[in-house]
Amino acid sequence: MTDEEMPTLHDVIAARPHVYRYLKPTPLYTYCGLSDMLGAKVWVKHENHLPVGAYKVRGGLNLVAHLSQSERDSGLFTASTGNHGQSIAFAARAYGLRATIAVPEGANPGKVAAMRGLGAEVVVHGPNYESALEWVVAAAAERGGRLVGGTENLLIHGVGSYGLEIVEDLPEVDVIVVPVGAGSGACATAIVAKTINPRIEVIAVQSAQAPAMQRSWLADKAVTVRAQTIADGLALSVPFENTRRILRKYLDDFVLVEDSAIEDAVLLLLEHTHNLAEGAAAAPLAAALNMKRRLAGKNVVLVMTGGNLSFERLRMLLAQSRKQGVPA
Amino acid sequence: MTDEEMPTLHDVIAARPHVYRYLKPTPLYTYCGLSDMLGAKVWVKHENHLPVGAYKVRGGLNLVAHLSQSERDSGLFTASTGNHGQSIAFAARAYGLRATIAVPEGANPGKVAAMRGLGAEVVVHGPNYESALEWVVAAAAERGGRLVGGTENLLIHGVGSYGLEIVEDLPEVDVIVVPVGAGSGACATAIVAKTINPRIEVIAVQSAQAPAMQRSWLADKAVTVRAQTIADGLALSVPFENTRRILRKYLDDFVLVEDSAIEDAVLLLLEHTHNLAEGAAAAPLAAALNMKRRLAGKNVVLVMTGGNLSFERLRMLLAQSRKQGVPA
Repeated sequence: MTDEEMPTLHDVIAARPHVYRYLKPTPLYTYCGLSDMLGAKVWVKHENHLPVGAYKVRGGLNLVAHLSQSERDSGLFTASTGNHGQSIAFAARAYGLRATIAVPEGANPGKVAAMRGLGAEVVVHGPNYESALEWVVAAAAERGGRLVGGTENLLIHGVGSYGLEIVEDLPEVDVIVVPVGAGSGACATAIVAKTINPRIEVIAVQSAQAPAMQRSWLADKAVTVRAQTIADGLALSVPFENTRRILRKYLDDFVLVEDSAIEDAVLLLLEHTHNLAEGAAAAPLAAALNMKRRLAGKNVVLVMTGGNLSFERLRMLLAQSRKQGVPA
Repeated sequence: MTDEEMPTLHDVIAARPHVYRYLKPTPLYTYCGLSDMLGAKVWVKHENHLPVGAYKVRGGLNLVAHLSQSERDSGLFTASTGNHGQSIAFAARAYGLRATIAVPEGANPGKVAAMRGLGAEVVVHGPNYESALEWVVAAAAERGGRLVGGTENLLIHGVGSYGLEIVEDLPEVDVIVVPVGAGSGACATAIVAKTINPRIEVIAVQSAQAPAMQRSWLADKAVTVRAQTIADGLALSVPFENTRRILRKYLDDFVLVEDSAIEDAVLLLLEHTHNLAEGAAAAPLAAALNMKRRLAGKNVVLVMTGGNLSFERLRMLLAQSRKQGVPA
């Protein structure tokens, strides 16, 4: 990918009519409990309020809007750990297309049920994202379908609409903290924010138990690291090349947080915002708590990327917290 | 109150600019898990996505917008079990006014913290809503402040904006199920829906452990019943006269649900929608589960009036459900 092929603010602006045809901007709220805790003015961008409960749906809607008639007729094929699949299923349904989604064994059952509820065919294959991807690449080739990558530029263009909403609703934003799975959300945020105002800091977060993108960003080359995080939205072992390069160009910093800190952050968000965050969506708060001095007094936006935490995981976290008295 | 003084659809339409000056329409989403469970097409109106996490903020914003300069200068005084107080605190902050909120002992600590975070003075007084109200009536008189009732028409006009959003987003709605505390939400919903289309059924719900409004509706006169529900948003012992009369005129039916069914419904909503509902906001699902035959095949809207469930209550519910295997 050359610089010329990198998504731009203009691409994001052009994608917006396709995104807003099917959904509304999400709220950006400040919470006094979180602000007190961090010694900053803390805002949460509620991407968990979208249909399917995650920001990715913005990208799916833009991608499907741009498909040719023959691509639409051929049906869509993609692999996902969950929210990307829901996004493609939602967009396919909106446009009346068939969608086949490959997910790894043990995928979040609520996310899988939602894909099926949206009419997608869901195929469970292999132990991780990469093996599900391998299956779906072959299936798409065999059946002549349109393979949808996890980080296509058209997805990034659509996803960028939330970044634009942040800057429009809070022009005085100083720092945006965003989690990274495949990287489309962080890329889109960084492109939008840095193009509009280079002084806005964009900080990406991964789990220390799945640091492939962060290590690749630091090394400026693809580094594969086996993902062992409990946060399914962050579970990626092999970095995507296009998002790696975009992050390298636009991102200010890329930090890691422990899975245990992510779990604490899920509970803190539940207590202080009354919103359920999935692991990935709680990682920004976990990271912010490690950067209190750096964030002090600033306008800080934490992107709550999705709310699809499984019921069983939540039950486990709450039971654990009662035993340990953490963090409430 | 004569019929002429009852709020109308026109009042609701006139209130909208004041409401939307500070907040955006909330989403109405369908969930396949809930639809399967009820054998109907089930939609959830996400009033929990509003600032302060509850529909009441719509009413507060409209009321404050209509105050005279001398009322604004005198400061606002009101009593609340929680969300009404947050609404008045939010609206007072938006317009730069002082607000004094009386709450009963044991009030939801998250709601109280949110009122204080919004800059309101919170006074804890007495064991229940009625005793907090008694205190604040005296305080307002003594200090020359503007007393804000819990169900003033100006509140109902603002709250009605969510009813209008429902009918606009889903013109084919057949049934709306809405919880009743003091009754402003149910009144507003019924006025809007029945005026636009008398065939839309509006069904109100109270806890069987706090049935004052339901018994009063059935008897067509004020009936006082001591409230013992775990759902703070439904805890009312002495019915409001104006909402009782509006409900009598507009409402199709008024049902009761057990607190235990409300608790199950909180967990079902968490599992199927990934949204945290406070007790009152889960009562419509609990009621719908008791009316499956009546609702079969219909377009049913459940109003999720607020999300401010306390962390401790949620922890208790989840721990309980693990023991009993209910309902997940």
